[in-house]
Amino acid sequence: MEPVPQTPALHHFRLTLAYDGTDFSGWQVQPGQVTIQGLLQAALGRITGEAPLPQGSGRTDAGVHALAQVASFALHAPIPPDNLLRALNRTLPAAIRILEARTVPSTFHARHGAVAKTYEYRIFRQRICPPFLARYVHACIWPLDPEILNRAAADLVGEHDFFSFAATDPDLGNRDPATPNQAHQPRSTIRTIYSSAWEPRQTLDGELLLYRVRGNGFLHHMVRNLVGTMLEMGRGQFPPDSVPRILAARNRSVAGPTAPACGLFLHSVEYRDSDSDEMTE
Amino acid sequence: MEPVPQTPALHHFRLTLAYDGTDFSGWQVQPGQVTIQGLLQAALGRITGEAPLPQGSGRTDAGVHALAQVASFALHAPIPPDNLLRALNRTLPAAIRILEARTVPSTFHARHGAVAKTYEYRIFRQRICPPFLARYVHACIWPLDPEILNRAAADLVGEHDFFSFAATDPDLGNRDPATPNQAHQPRSTIRTIYSSAWEPRQTLDGELLLYRVRGNGFLHHMVRNLVGTMLEMGRGQFPPDSVPRILAARNRSVAGPTAPACGLFLHSVEYRDSDSDEMTE
Repeated sequence: MEPVPQTPALHHFRLTLAYDGTDFSGWQVQPGQVTIQGLLQAALGRITGEAPLPQGSGRTDAGVHALAQVASFALHAPIPPDNLLRALNRTLPAAIRILEARTVPSTFHARHGAVAKTYEYRIFRQRICPPFLARYVHACIWPLDPEILNRAAADLVGEHDFFSFAATDPDLGNRDPATPNQAHQPRSTIRTIYSSAWEPRQTLDGELLLYRVRGNGFLHHMVRNLVGTMLEMGRGQFPPDSVPRILAARNRSVAGPTAPACGLFLHSVEYRDSDSDEMTE
Repeated sequence: MEPVPQTPALHHFRLTLAYDGTDFSGWQVQPGQVTIQGLLQAALGRITGEAPLPQGSGRTDAGVHALAQVASFALHAPIPPDNLLRALNRTLPAAIRILEARTVPSTFHARHGAVAKTYEYRIFRQRICPPFLARYVHACIWPLDPEILNRAAADLVGEHDFFSFAATDPDLGNRDPATPNQAHQPRSTIRTIYSSAWEPRQTLDGELLLYRVRGNGFLHHMVRNLVGTMLEMGRGQFPPDSVPRILAARNRSVAGPTAPACGLFLHSVEYRDSDSDEMTE
Protein backbone atom coordinates (compact mmCIF):
# COMPACT_ATOMS: atom_id res chain seq x y z
CA MET A 1 0.00 0.00 0.00
CA GLU A 2 1.25 3.51 -0.84
CA PRO A 3 1.76 5.74 2.20
CA VAL A 4 -0.83 8.48 2.43
CA PRO A 5 0.96 11.82 1.85
CA GLN A 6 0.72 13.93 4.97
CA THR A 7 0.01 17.63 4.94
CA PRO A 8 2.83 19.07 7.05
CA ALA A 9 1.30 20.58 10.18
CA LEU A 10 2.31 24.14 11.05
CA HIS A 11 2.67 25.29 14.63
CA HIS A 12 1.99 28.97 15.18
CA PHE A 13 3.94 30.85 17.83
CA ARG A 14 3.71 34.21 19.51
CA LEU A 15 6.74 35.68 21.25
CA THR A 16 6.95 38.65 23.58
CA LEU A 17 10.45 40.10 23.59
CA ALA A 18 12.43 42.96 25.13
CA TYR A 19 15.48 44.52 23.56
CA ASP A 20 18.11 47.18 24.04
CA GLY A 21 18.06 48.71 20.56
CA THR A 22 21.30 50.69 20.95
CA ASP A 23 23.57 48.37 19.00
CA PHE A 24 21.08 47.23 16.33
CA SER A 25 19.93 48.71 13.03
CA GLY A 26 16.31 48.54 14.13
CA TRP A 27 13.80 45.71 14.01
CA GLN A 28 13.50 45.02 10.31
CA VAL A 29 15.84 42.65 8.50
CA GLN A 30 18.15 44.52 6.10
CA PRO A 31 21.06 43.25 4.01
CA GLY A 32 24.39 43.70 5.74
CA GLN A 33 22.81 45.09 8.93
CA VAL A 34 22.43 43.54 12.36
CA THR A 35 18.71 43.77 13.12
CA ILE A 36 16.52 42.24 15.78
CA GLN A 37 14.26 40.51 13.26
CA GLY A 38 17.34 39.14 11.47
CA LEU A 39 18.94 37.83 14.66
CA LEU A 40 15.66 36.24 15.72
CA GLN A 41 15.27 34.54 12.34
CA ALA A 42 18.86 33.27 12.50
CA ALA A 43 18.35 31.96 16.05
CA LEU A 44 15.19 30.11 14.98
CA GLY A 45 17.19 28.62 12.13
CA ARG A 46 19.96 27.41 14.44
CA ILE A 47 17.48 25.89 16.89
CA THR A 48 14.92 24.31 14.56
CA GLY A 49 16.53 24.12 11.13
CA GLU A 50 13.64 26.28 9.90
CA ALA A 51 14.05 30.03 9.52
CA PRO A 52 10.67 31.72 9.12
CA LEU A 53 10.80 35.53 9.12
CA PRO A 54 9.12 36.55 12.38
CA GLN A 55 6.49 39.24 11.90
CA GLY A 56 6.69 42.01 14.48
CA SER A 57 3.79 44.15 15.69
CA GLY A 58 5.61 46.91 13.85
CA ARG A 59 9.13 48.03 13.07
CA THR A 60 11.22 49.90 15.55
CA ASP A 61 13.96 52.20 14.27
CA ALA A 62 17.68 51.93 14.96
CA GLY A 63 18.36 52.71 18.61
CA VAL A 64 14.73 52.34 19.73
CA HIS A 65 14.13 49.85 22.55
CA ALA A 66 11.27 47.48 23.35
CA LEU A 67 9.92 46.40 26.70
CA ALA A 68 7.39 44.02 25.10
CA GLN A 69 7.51 43.75 21.33
CA VAL A 70 5.31 40.94 19.94
CA ALA A 71 6.31 38.66 17.05
CA SER A 72 4.58 35.77 15.30
CA PHE A 73 5.74 32.95 13.00
CA ALA A 74 5.01 29.32 12.19
CA LEU A 75 7.22 26.25 12.45
CA HIS A 76 6.86 22.66 11.28
CA ALA A 77 8.75 21.55 14.41
CA PRO A 78 6.34 20.81 17.30
CA ILE A 79 8.70 22.40 19.84
CA PRO A 80 7.13 23.15 23.24
CA PRO A 81 6.98 26.96 23.71
CA ASP A 82 8.96 26.96 26.93
CA ASN A 83 11.76 24.97 25.29
CA LEU A 84 11.75 27.43 22.41
CA LEU A 85 11.98 30.33 24.88
CA ARG A 86 14.96 28.81 26.67
CA ALA A 87 16.73 27.85 23.45
CA LEU A 88 16.23 31.34 21.98
CA ASN A 89 17.55 33.03 25.13
CA ARG A 90 20.62 30.78 25.03
CA THR A 91 21.20 31.65 21.35
CA LEU A 92 20.37 35.37 21.20
CA PRO A 93 22.65 38.11 22.59
CA ALA A 94 21.80 39.34 26.11
CA ALA A 95 20.52 42.59 24.53
CA ILE A 96 17.49 40.61 23.24
CA ARG A 97 15.41 38.54 25.66
CA ILE A 98 12.36 36.44 24.97
CA LEU A 99 9.98 37.13 27.88
CA GLU A 100 7.17 34.81 26.82
CA ALA A 101 6.54 32.19 24.14
CA ARG A 102 3.18 30.55 23.43
CA THR A 103 1.34 28.74 20.69
CA VAL A 104 -1.53 30.59 19.05
CA PRO A 105 -4.21 29.87 16.45
CA SER A 106 -3.11 30.21 12.83
CA THR A 107 -5.23 33.36 12.61
CA PHE A 108 -2.91 35.26 14.95
CA HIS A 109 -0.68 37.81 13.23
CA ALA A 110 1.47 40.14 15.34
CA ARG A 111 1.08 43.08 12.96
CA HIS A 112 -2.40 42.69 11.49
CA GLY A 113 -3.99 41.73 14.82
CA ALA A 114 -2.62 44.58 16.93
CA VAL A 115 -5.41 46.88 18.09
CA ALA A 116 -3.44 49.25 20.32
CA LYS A 117 0.15 50.09 21.16
CA THR A 118 1.77 51.99 23.98
CA TYR A 119 5.09 53.82 23.70
CA GLU A 120 7.16 55.34 26.48
CA TYR A 121 9.73 58.11 26.11
CA ARG A 122 12.30 58.65 28.89
CA ILE A 123 13.99 61.98 29.59
CA PHE A 124 16.81 62.56 32.05
CA ARG A 125 16.70 66.02 33.62
CA GLN A 126 19.82 66.45 35.72
CA ARG A 127 23.10 68.00 34.68
CA ILE A 128 25.26 64.90 34.35
CA CYS A 129 23.63 61.77 32.94
CA PRO A 130 25.01 58.59 34.58
CA PRO A 131 26.74 56.34 32.02
CA PHE A 132 24.39 53.51 33.04
CA LEU A 133 21.34 55.49 31.90
CA ALA A 134 22.83 57.14 28.82
CA ARG A 135 21.72 54.40 26.40
CA TYR A 136 18.12 54.55 27.63
CA VAL A 137 17.23 58.23 27.99
CA HIS A 138 17.31 61.53 26.19
CA ALA A 139 19.33 63.87 28.40
CA CYS A 140 17.52 67.21 28.27
CA ILE A 141 18.69 69.86 30.71
CA TRP A 142 16.43 72.70 29.54
CA PRO A 143 13.97 73.92 32.17
CA LEU A 144 10.56 72.48 31.20
CA ASP A 145 7.18 73.76 32.35
CA PRO A 146 5.23 70.69 33.52
CA GLU A 147 1.84 72.39 33.06
CA ILE A 148 2.61 73.15 29.43
CA LEU A 149 3.80 69.58 28.84
CA ASN A 150 0.64 68.15 30.40
CA ARG A 151 -1.62 70.43 28.40
CA ALA A 152 0.19 69.51 25.18
CA ALA A 153 -0.09 65.79 25.97
CA ALA A 154 -3.81 66.13 26.71
CA ASP A 155 -4.39 68.04 23.46
CA LEU A 156 -3.22 64.96 21.54
CA VAL A 157 -5.92 62.63 22.90
CA GLY A 158 -8.64 61.67 20.43
CA GLU A 159 -8.87 61.04 16.69
CA HIS A 160 -6.65 63.40 14.73
CA ASP A 161 -4.82 63.65 11.44
CA PHE A 162 -1.19 63.32 12.55
CA PHE A 163 0.33 64.20 9.15
CA SER A 164 2.35 67.05 10.74
CA PHE A 165 3.97 64.58 13.12
CA ALA A 166 4.84 61.87 10.56
CA ALA A 167 8.21 61.30 8.95
CA THR A 168 8.29 62.96 5.57
CA ASP A 169 9.76 59.81 3.99
CA PRO A 170 6.75 58.65 1.89
CA ASP A 171 7.70 54.96 1.89
CA LEU A 172 7.83 54.86 5.65
CA GLY A 173 4.99 57.23 6.36
CA ASN A 174 2.53 54.60 7.42
CA ARG A 175 3.26 51.09 8.38
CA ASP A 176 1.16 50.14 11.29
CA PRO A 177 -1.59 47.61 11.83
CA ALA A 178 -4.50 50.03 11.66
CA THR A 179 -4.10 50.46 7.90
CA PRO A 180 -2.54 47.52 6.06
CA ASN A 181 -0.24 48.26 3.15
CA GLN A 182 -1.93 49.67 0.09
CA ALA A 183 0.82 50.12 -2.45
CA HIS A 184 0.62 53.22 -4.67
CA GLN A 185 -2.26 54.71 -2.70
CA PRO A 186 -2.05 57.61 -0.31
CA ARG A 187 -2.26 56.22 3.17
CA SER A 188 -4.34 57.63 5.96
CA THR A 189 -2.50 59.66 8.58
CA ILE A 190 -5.50 59.62 10.92
CA ARG A 191 -4.93 57.89 14.25
CA THR A 192 -6.71 57.73 17.57
CA ILE A 193 -4.78 58.45 20.76
CA TYR A 194 -6.45 56.90 23.82
CA SER A 195 -4.13 58.34 26.47
CA SER A 196 -1.16 60.68 26.50
CA ALA A 197 0.52 61.95 29.66
CA TRP A 198 3.79 62.94 31.31
CA GLU A 199 4.86 61.64 34.70
CA PRO A 200 8.01 61.80 36.84
CA ARG A 201 9.68 58.54 37.88
CA GLN A 202 12.32 58.10 40.58
CA THR A 203 15.13 55.67 39.79
CA LEU A 204 18.32 54.77 41.63
CA ASP A 205 20.21 56.86 39.07
CA GLY A 206 18.10 60.02 39.37
CA GLU A 207 14.70 61.36 38.39
CA LEU A 208 13.30 60.69 34.94
CA LEU A 209 10.47 62.40 33.13
CA LEU A 210 8.36 59.85 31.24
CA TYR A 211 5.93 60.40 28.42
CA ARG A 212 3.52 57.53 27.81
CA VAL A 213 1.14 57.41 24.87
CA ARG A 214 -1.40 54.72 23.90
CA GLY A 215 -3.16 54.69 20.55
CA ASN A 216 -4.58 52.51 17.80
CA GLY A 217 -1.49 53.05 15.69
CA PHE A 218 1.45 55.35 15.15
CA LEU A 219 3.01 56.83 12.02
CA HIS A 220 6.74 56.54 11.41
CA HIS A 221 8.65 58.86 13.83
CA MET A 222 5.32 60.02 15.27
CA VAL A 223 6.13 59.52 18.96
CA ARG A 224 9.58 61.06 18.60
CA ASN A 225 8.11 64.03 16.71
CA LEU A 226 5.40 64.48 19.34
CA VAL A 227 8.06 64.46 22.08
CA GLY A 228 10.37 66.80 20.17
CA THR A 229 7.49 69.22 19.70
CA MET A 230 6.28 69.04 23.30
CA LEU A 231 9.84 69.70 24.55
CA GLU A 232 9.96 72.86 22.41
CA MET A 233 6.67 73.91 24.01
CA GLY A 234 7.82 73.00 27.52
CA ARG A 235 10.92 75.18 27.22
CA GLY A 236 8.98 78.10 25.77
CA GLN A 237 10.12 77.93 22.14
CA PHE A 238 6.59 77.13 20.91
CA PRO A 239 3.40 78.64 22.44
CA PRO A 240 1.40 76.48 24.91
CA ASP A 241 -1.54 76.08 22.49
CA SER A 242 0.60 74.77 19.62
CA VAL A 243 -0.80 71.23 19.34
CA PRO A 244 -4.18 72.03 17.72
CA ARG A 245 -2.50 74.52 15.36
CA ILE A 246 0.19 72.01 14.30
CA LEU A 247 -2.38 69.21 13.82
CA ALA A 248 -4.53 71.52 11.67
CA ALA A 249 -1.58 72.62 9.52
CA ARG A 250 -0.89 69.13 8.09
CA ASN A 251 2.70 70.23 7.53
CA ARG A 252 5.72 68.48 9.04
CA SER A 253 7.76 71.67 9.02
CA VAL A 254 5.58 73.43 11.60
CA ALA A 255 6.14 70.73 14.23
CA GLY A 256 9.30 70.41 16.37
CA PRO A 257 12.38 68.27 15.81
CA THR A 258 12.49 64.47 16.06
CA ALA A 259 13.56 63.51 19.59
CA PRO A 260 16.50 61.06 19.74
CA ALA A 261 15.80 57.33 19.28
CA CYS A 262 17.58 56.32 22.50
CA GLY A 263 14.78 57.63 24.75
CA LEU A 264 12.00 55.66 23.02
CA PHE A 265 10.59 52.32 24.18
CA LEU A 266 7.84 50.25 22.61
CA HIS A 267 6.06 49.58 25.90
CA SER A 268 3.33 47.09 24.94
CA VAL A 269 1.04 45.84 22.18
CA GLU A 270 -2.61 44.85 22.60
CA TYR A 271 -4.64 42.28 20.65
CA ARG A 272 -8.27 41.25 20.55
CA ASP A 273 -8.79 38.40 23.02
CA SER A 274 -9.69 35.94 20.28
CA ASP A 275 -6.34 36.58 18.58
CA SER A 276 -4.17 35.94 21.56
CA ASP A 277 -5.91 32.92 23.07
CA GLU A 278 -3.43 30.22 23.81
CA MET A 279 -3.77 27.24 21.48
CA THR A 280 -4.83 24.12 23.32
CA GLU A 281 -2.97 21.20 21.87
CA MET B 1 66.01 94.58 30.55
CA GLU B 2 65.96 90.85 30.10
CA PRO B 3 62.63 89.21 31.04
CA VAL B 4 62.87 87.13 34.21
CA PRO B 5 62.38 83.43 33.23
CA GLN B 6 59.19 82.11 34.80
CA THR B 7 58.90 78.71 36.33
CA PRO B 8 55.83 77.26 34.64
CA ALA B 9 53.15 76.83 37.29
CA LEU B 10 51.42 73.45 37.46
CA HIS B 11 47.76 73.15 38.38
CA HIS B 12 46.85 69.90 40.07
CA PHE B 13 43.41 68.43 39.44
CA ARG B 14 41.34 65.67 40.95
CA LEU B 15 38.47 64.15 38.95
CA THR B 16 35.71 61.85 40.12
CA LEU B 17 34.32 59.86 37.21
CA ALA B 18 31.75 57.18 36.48
CA TYR B 19 31.95 54.78 33.58
CA ASP B 20 30.18 51.89 31.93
CA GLY B 21 33.16 49.59 31.37
CA THR B 22 31.40 47.24 28.93
CA ASP B 23 32.88 48.60 25.74
CA PHE B 24 36.37 49.47 27.00
CA SER B 25 39.55 47.45 27.52
CA GLY B 26 39.70 48.51 31.15
CA TRP B 27 41.17 51.63 32.77
CA GLN B 28 44.82 51.42 31.84
CA VAL B 29 46.16 52.83 28.60
CA GLN B 30 47.30 50.07 26.23
CA PRO B 31 48.54 50.27 22.64
CA GLY B 32 45.75 49.69 20.14
CA GLN B 33 43.05 49.40 22.82
CA VAL B 34 40.27 51.79 23.77
CA THR B 35 40.73 52.41 27.49
CA ILE B 36 39.24 54.90 29.92
CA GLN B 37 42.63 56.32 30.89
CA GLY B 38 43.53 56.65 27.21
CA LEU B 39 40.27 58.41 26.29
CA LEU B 40 40.63 60.75 29.26
CA GLN B 41 44.20 61.61 28.27
CA ALA B 42 43.12 62.24 24.66
CA ALA B 43 40.21 64.44 25.82
CA LEU B 44 42.56 66.50 28.01
CA GLY B 45 44.82 66.88 24.98
CA ARG B 46 41.99 68.12 22.79
CA ILE B 47 40.79 70.59 25.40
CA THR B 48 44.06 71.98 26.75
CA GLY B 49 46.76 71.04 24.26
CA GLU B 50 48.46 69.17 27.10
CA ALA B 51 48.01 65.44 27.53
CA PRO B 52 49.18 64.32 30.96
CA LEU B 53 48.48 60.66 31.74
CA PRO B 54 45.81 60.77 34.47
CA GLN B 55 46.63 58.54 37.42
CA GLY B 56 43.66 56.47 38.62
CA SER B 57 43.09 55.24 42.17
CA GLY B 58 43.71 51.83 40.63
CA ARG B 59 43.14 49.98 37.40
CA THR B 60 39.81 48.44 36.60
CA ASP B 61 39.71 45.45 34.26
CA ALA B 62 37.91 45.25 30.93
CA GLY B 63 34.15 45.26 31.50
CA VAL B 64 34.36 46.52 35.10
CA HIS B 65 32.36 49.68 35.85
CA ALA B 66 32.98 52.63 38.15
CA LEU B 67 30.49 54.71 40.08
CA ALA B 68 33.22 57.02 41.42
CA GLN B 69 36.75 56.36 40.20
CA VAL B 70 39.24 59.08 41.18
CA ALA B 71 41.99 60.36 38.89
CA SER B 72 44.69 63.00 39.33
CA PHE B 73 46.94 64.92 36.93
CA ALA B 74 48.58 68.31 36.51
CA LEU B 75 48.17 70.94 33.80
CA HIS B 76 49.99 74.14 32.94
CA ALA B 77 46.69 75.63 31.79
CA PRO B 78 44.90 77.45 34.65
CA ILE B 79 41.49 76.13 33.54
CA PRO B 80 38.71 76.53 36.14
CA PRO B 81 37.65 73.04 37.33
CA ASP B 82 34.02 73.47 36.38
CA ASN B 83 34.98 74.50 32.84
CA LEU B 84 37.23 71.46 32.64
CA LEU B 85 34.35 69.24 33.82
CA ARG B 86 31.99 70.59 31.17
CA ALA B 87 34.57 70.42 28.40
CA LEU B 88 35.49 66.83 29.28
CA ASN B 89 31.83 65.75 29.35
CA ARG B 90 31.34 67.33 25.94
CA THR B 91 34.41 65.53 24.57
CA LEU B 92 34.17 62.08 26.19
CA PRO B 93 31.65 59.41 25.11
CA ALA B 94 28.44 59.24 27.18
CA ALA B 95 29.74 55.98 28.71
CA ILE B 96 32.28 58.07 30.68
CA ARG B 97 31.08 61.00 32.80
CA ILE B 98 33.07 63.37 34.95
CA LEU B 99 31.02 63.81 38.13
CA GLU B 100 33.31 66.26 39.89
CA ALA B 101 36.48 68.22 39.12
CA ARG B 102 38.51 70.20 41.63
CA THR B 103 41.98 71.58 42.16
CA VAL B 104 44.10 69.91 44.81
CA PRO B 105 47.51 70.43 46.40
CA SER B 106 50.46 69.04 44.44
CA THR B 107 50.79 66.34 47.10
CA PHE B 108 47.52 64.69 46.06
CA HIS B 109 47.96 61.47 44.10
CA ALA B 110 44.89 59.37 43.26
CA ARG B 111 46.70 56.05 43.67
CA HIS B 112 49.28 56.67 46.40
CA GLY B 113 46.88 58.67 48.55
CA ALA B 114 43.96 56.24 48.57
CA VAL B 115 43.40 54.81 52.04
CA ALA B 116 40.27 52.75 51.39
CA LYS B 117 38.17 51.52 48.49
CA THR B 118 34.69 50.13 48.25
CA TYR B 119 33.55 47.75 45.52
CA GLU B 120 30.02 46.61 44.75
CA TYR B 121 29.04 43.44 42.91
CA ARG B 122 25.52 43.15 41.44
CA ILE B 123 23.73 39.85 40.86
CA PHE B 124 20.42 39.40 39.07
CA ARG B 125 18.39 36.51 40.47
CA GLN B 126 15.35 36.04 38.24
CA ARG B 127 15.02 33.73 35.30
CA ILE B 128 15.18 36.23 32.44
CA CYS B 129 17.55 39.17 32.80
CA PRO B 130 16.13 42.35 31.21
CA PRO B 131 18.34 43.57 28.33
CA PHE B 132 18.65 46.93 30.09
CA LEU B 133 20.36 45.32 33.10
CA ALA B 134 22.46 42.72 31.27
CA ARG B 135 25.53 44.94 30.96
CA TYR B 136 25.53 45.75 34.69
CA VAL B 137 24.83 42.48 36.50
CA HIS B 138 25.90 38.87 36.72
CA ALA B 139 22.77 36.81 36.03
CA CYS B 140 22.89 33.93 38.48
CA ILE B 141 19.78 31.79 38.69
CA TRP B 142 21.08 29.18 41.16
CA PRO B 143 19.22 29.10 44.47
CA LEU B 144 21.48 30.82 47.02
CA ASP B 145 21.28 30.47 50.79
CA PRO B 146 21.39 34.03 52.20
CA GLU B 147 22.61 32.86 55.62
CA ILE B 148 25.59 31.14 54.08
CA LEU B 149 26.38 34.18 51.95
CA ASN B 150 26.23 36.47 54.98
CA ARG B 151 28.42 34.19 57.06
CA ALA B 152 30.98 33.98 54.27
CA ALA B 153 31.00 37.77 53.85
CA ALA B 154 31.46 38.27 57.60
CA ASP B 155 34.33 35.76 57.68
CA LEU B 156 36.28 38.01 55.32
CA VAL B 157 36.30 41.04 57.64
CA GLY B 158 39.66 41.82 59.26
CA GLU B 159 43.31 41.56 58.27
CA HIS B 160 44.00 38.43 56.22
CA ASP B 161 46.42 37.09 53.66
CA PHE B 162 44.25 37.04 50.51
CA PHE B 163 46.77 35.13 48.38
CA SER B 164 44.13 32.44 47.63
CA PHE B 165 41.83 35.11 46.17
CA ALA B 166 44.41 36.90 44.01
CA ALA B 167 44.89 36.47 40.29
CA THR B 168 47.75 34.05 39.64
CA ASP B 169 49.27 36.44 37.09
CA PRO B 170 52.38 37.57 39.01
CA ASP B 171 52.70 40.91 37.25
CA LEU B 172 49.19 41.87 38.16
CA GLY B 173 49.04 40.28 41.58
CA ASN B 174 49.36 43.46 43.53
CA ARG B 175 48.83 46.95 42.31
CA ASP B 176 46.95 48.89 44.86
CA PRO B 177 47.78 51.90 47.00
CA ALA B 178 48.48 50.00 50.22
CA THR B 179 51.74 48.62 48.88
CA PRO B 180 53.50 50.70 46.23
CA ASN B 181 55.32 48.90 43.45
CA GLN B 182 58.47 47.08 44.50
CA ALA B 183 59.87 45.54 41.35
CA HIS B 184 61.44 42.09 41.67
CA GLN B 185 60.27 41.65 45.22
CA PRO B 186 57.48 39.44 46.40
CA ARG B 187 54.55 41.70 47.19
CA SER B 188 52.40 41.42 50.24
CA THR B 189 49.02 39.78 49.76
CA ILE B 190 47.83 40.91 53.19
CA ARG B 191 44.87 43.28 53.16
CA THR B 192 42.38 44.55 55.72
CA ILE B 193 38.66 44.31 54.99
CA TYR B 194 36.65 46.84 57.00
CA SER B 195 33.18 45.70 55.96
CA SER B 196 31.76 42.96 53.77
CA ALA B 197 28.04 42.23 53.39
CA TRP B 198 25.27 41.13 51.05
CA GLU B 199 22.00 43.01 50.69
CA PRO B 200 18.98 42.82 48.39
CA ARG B 201 18.04 45.89 46.36
CA GLN B 202 14.77 46.49 44.56
CA THR B 203 15.00 48.14 41.13
CA LEU B 204 12.44 48.89 38.46
CA ASP B 205 13.81 45.92 36.51
CA GLY B 206 13.65 43.38 39.31
CA GLU B 207 15.44 42.45 42.52
CA LEU B 208 19.21 42.50 42.69
CA LEU B 209 21.51 40.92 45.23
CA LEU B 210 24.40 43.26 46.05
CA TYR B 211 27.72 42.47 47.65
CA ARG B 212 29.57 45.47 49.02
CA VAL B 213 33.10 45.29 50.38
CA ARG B 214 35.31 48.05 51.81
CA GLY B 215 39.00 47.56 52.52
CA ASN B 216 42.40 49.22 52.57
CA GLY B 217 43.28 47.65 49.22
CA PHE B 218 42.40 44.81 46.89
CA LEU B 219 44.55 42.38 44.92
CA HIS B 220 43.95 41.87 41.20
CA HIS B 221 40.69 39.93 40.68
CA MET B 222 40.20 39.74 44.45
CA VAL B 223 36.60 40.97 44.61
CA ARG B 224 35.54 38.81 41.66
CA ASN B 225 37.25 35.78 43.22
CA LEU B 226 35.60 36.47 46.58
CA VAL B 227 32.21 36.70 44.88
CA GLY B 228 32.79 33.59 42.75
CA THR B 229 33.75 31.66 45.87
CA MET B 230 30.81 32.91 47.96
CA LEU B 231 28.39 31.98 45.16
CA GLU B 232 29.77 28.42 45.20
CA MET B 233 29.16 28.38 48.96
CA GLY B 234 25.68 29.89 48.66
CA ARG B 235 24.59 27.23 46.22
CA GLY B 236 26.05 24.42 48.32
CA GLN B 237 29.06 23.48 46.19
CA PHE B 238 31.50 24.57 48.94
CA PRO B 239 30.85 24.04 52.69
CA PRO B 240 29.60 27.05 54.71
CA ASP B 241 32.88 27.35 56.67
CA SER B 242 35.08 27.52 53.57
CA VAL B 243 36.43 31.08 53.95
CA PRO B 244 38.88 30.49 56.84
CA ARG B 245 40.06 27.27 55.20
CA ILE B 246 40.65 28.94 51.81
CA LEU B 247 42.43 31.93 53.40
CA ALA B 248 44.72 29.58 55.33
CA ALA B 249 45.54 27.49 52.25
CA ARG B 250 47.29 30.36 50.38
CA ASN B 251 46.43 28.56 47.16
CA ARG B 252 44.34 30.08 44.36
CA SER B 253 43.14 26.66 43.22
CA VAL B 254 41.13 25.98 46.37
CA ALA B 255 38.98 29.12 45.94
CA GLY B 256 36.03 29.40 43.55
CA PRO B 257 35.93 30.77 40.01
CA THR B 258 36.35 34.44 39.06
CA ALA B 259 32.89 36.04 38.83
CA PRO B 260 32.23 37.91 35.55
CA ALA B 261 33.56 41.46 35.17
CA CYS B 262 30.16 42.90 34.18
CA GLY B 263 28.76 42.66 37.73
CA LEU B 264 31.61 44.62 39.35
CA PHE B 265 31.57 48.34 40.18
CA LEU B 266 34.30 50.41 41.81
CA HIS B 267 31.93 52.16 44.22
CA SER B 268 34.14 54.78 45.90
CA VAL B 269 37.67 55.68 46.95
CA GLU B 270 38.63 57.37 50.22
CA TYR B 271 41.56 59.70 50.95
CA ARG B 272 43.00 61.29 54.03
CA ASP B 273 41.37 64.68 54.54
CA SER B 274 44.65 66.52 54.01
CA ASP B 275 45.01 64.92 50.56
CA SER B 276 41.64 65.84 49.24
CA ASP B 277 41.27 69.36 50.56
CA GLU B 278 40.29 71.70 47.82
CA MET B 279 43.10 74.02 46.78
CA THR B 280 42.32 77.62 47.64
CA GLU B 281 43.56 79.80 44.85
